[in-house]
Amino acid sequence: MSAPLHHVRIVGAGLIGTSIGLALRKRDIAVTMVDSSDAAQALAQDLLNIPASQRPADLVIFALPISAISSVIENEYLQNLNATFIDISSVKVKVINEVKSSSLPASRFLPTHPMAGREVGGAQSARGDLFQDRPWIYDPDGVDGDVLRNGLALIELCGGHPVALASQAHDEAVAAISHLPQLLASLLARSLHGLQPSALDLAGAGLRDTTRIAGSDPKLWREILSANNQALLPLLKAVSVDLSDLIAHLDDPDFIEKFIEGGNSGRNLIPGKHGGVARKYTYLPVVIEDKPGQLAALFDLCAEAGVNVEDLSIEHSPEQFTGLITLALSSSDADTLYNHLLKSGWRVHEARS
Amino acid sequence: MSAPLHHVRIVGAGLIGTSIGLALRKRDIAVTMVDSSDAAQALAQDLLNIPASQRPADLVIFALPISAISSVIENEYLQNLNATFIDISSVKVKVINEVKSSSLPASRFLPTHPMAGREVGGAQSARGDLFQDRPWIYDPDGVDGDVLRNGLALIELCGGHPVALASQAHDEAVAAISHLPQLLASLLARSLHGLQPSALDLAGAGLRDTTRIAGSDPKLWREILSANNQALLPLLKAVSVDLSDLIAHLDDPDFIEKFIEGGNSGRNLIPGKHGGVARKYTYLPVVIEDKPGQLAALFDLCAEAGVNVEDLSIEHSPEQFTGLITLALSSSDADTLYNHLLKSGWRVHEARS
Repeated sequence: MSAPLHHVRIVGAGLIGTSIGLALRKRDIAVTMVDSSDAAQALAQDLLNIPASQRPADLVIFALPISAISSVIENEYLQNLNATFIDISSVKVKVINEVKSSSLPASRFLPTHPMAGREVGGAQSARGDLFQDRPWIYDPDGVDGDVLRNGLALIELCGGHPVALASQAHDEAVAAISHLPQLLASLLARSLHGLQPSALDLAGAGLRDTTRIAGSDPKLWREILSANNQALLPLLKAVSVDLSDLIAHLDDPDFIEKFIEGGNSGRNLIPGKHGGVARKYTYLPVVIEDKPGQLAALFDLCAEAGVNVEDLSIEHSPEQFTGLITLALSSSDADTLYNHLLKSGWRVHEARS
Repeated sequence: MSAPLHHVRIVGAGLIGTSIGLALRKRDIAVTMVDSSDAAQALAQDLLNIPASQRPADLVIFALPISAISSVIENEYLQNLNATFIDISSVKVKVINEVKSSSLPASRFLPTHPMAGREVGGAQSARGDLFQDRPWIYDPDGVDGDVLRNGLALIELCGGHPVALASQAHDEAVAAISHLPQLLASLLARSLHGLQPSALDLAGAGLRDTTRIAGSDPKLWREILSANNQALLPLLKAVSVDLSDLIAHLDDPDFIEKFIEGGNSGRNLIPGKHGGVARKYTYLPVVIEDKPGQLAALFDLCAEAGVNVEDLSIEHSPEQFTGLITLALSSSDADTLYNHLLKSGWRVHEARS
């Protein structure tokens, strides 16, 4: 099943649109990125390093906020009458309704939703492997064969795992496994306002993990949650009842133990598959002095040793004279660099994988 | 300040007790592990590979569930009249009250709490570096000098970061930054019961992170939450009110956006790893070719421009020819570097803060 996608037009140069663009460019498919923001469009085009294409687009992707799709549908359809169309929004029923009230025939439009994202947005956070091995939902109901074929070809090219799901069932599922977690993470993060810094200083991995997605974009989530509030409401009400029950029994150790047990078994329902790509790196810790020029000197040595730094993190605190930089490398590069840094007098420590 | 700890007696061979044992053994300090469960004691002793010590213990650590401490205090004190005593429980006021109602003089007991743990328990999950660079709280109020010295020596030997905090303030702080997150993670995980497997199959990193600590031990948390329910109750009630408010305004997009924004700013209150205040950086995106030497060249230019790179991230996927490096700088350094890179022909984009 590989449909001939020659030129894909991506309307919206945010995280998802630009990540799709990166995935397609890796496969040498012509991409046009358009965005109402000139800066976003310029960054996406630069990241993709796009040559101009004179062919008409065979697939148009609406990669915009749900509320913005209605403003581009008419124009995109009239400019690309023979193209096929998909979207990538997080909520499906509302988008289908938008299409139905436009000139774009519903049979020319495949509703899809790649289940991938990051808590940071924008073209600058895009990555071509964002969809690798992630579920990518589509609803084939009443869609023309060529539209379905192009949509599935795109999912395949992006490395996604296609999952057919009716739009209504999709919206209920994401309310439970994505939108509710977002709101509870936000709820928890909101509770931190007013705490003493001495209390916040004690925060550990538990709080950090549990609130990680509370850092998500408010404008994006305004869209998603508003578009799906019908599916969300009963879930939030059920959580509220469960919380009231807990409050009423907080002095009952047996109740608390059962409450936590219910969380254990609920947590165990989450399947282990379909996580993001776990890339295996070896991590090399290097202690550096926290001053200009140190990183340059370190990377000069990396270049000398001919190793490719895949990722890195820097840990340092204000008024501390040293910082810890952890380099992610292939295991053989880590060996090479370890020896090179040691010989050059750097404070490098044993690698861990 | 290194007090001469020669022989430490650890009462309780669970995760924390055994991890302390492992840390001490690494420093060649004699350790005796005791546990009411023969199996736990045998496993811990095997893990630690303990030679017998004939010296009397100079420090006794109560590393048991809060409800079990009262059952060992008398006996441990009578057997080790000249020792110093500490505990490691997650809740302090209740333990201090237990000590006050025993023969062990309160001045011989230092209440402490290492802010480290895992969502898995037991000696088999223990690790000697569990406390490395983690805050370790102690309450020196009314405690004898030698007891304090031994307690601080232990914290130092385990690599912990000692933080003096009054017990009441401690209990309120952990209610907010540890016990409340535990309950909300459990609450969310409980909501997954009854979902279709097709919905659960769509679960992503967001749900997984947000419910990670929902896998915690119910018997352990029964203890902790029951011992600290007075501090927890008002926090849970406040969350419940905030949740009801959300439910009442779920059809108001402006409210939802503000709700998520409140989560953003709450999340931003959590300090970075070393407990410093979260610093505000300006982020400068630079598109680089993904090959050795590019980072070195970039950091040479950073050094030339005299700017200090505070943090950075690299985004790229395997088999992709460009990568995006985002540099975190002070706002004035970002300006300086932007101009310098542009002049030098680099693909630098507009900064965002």
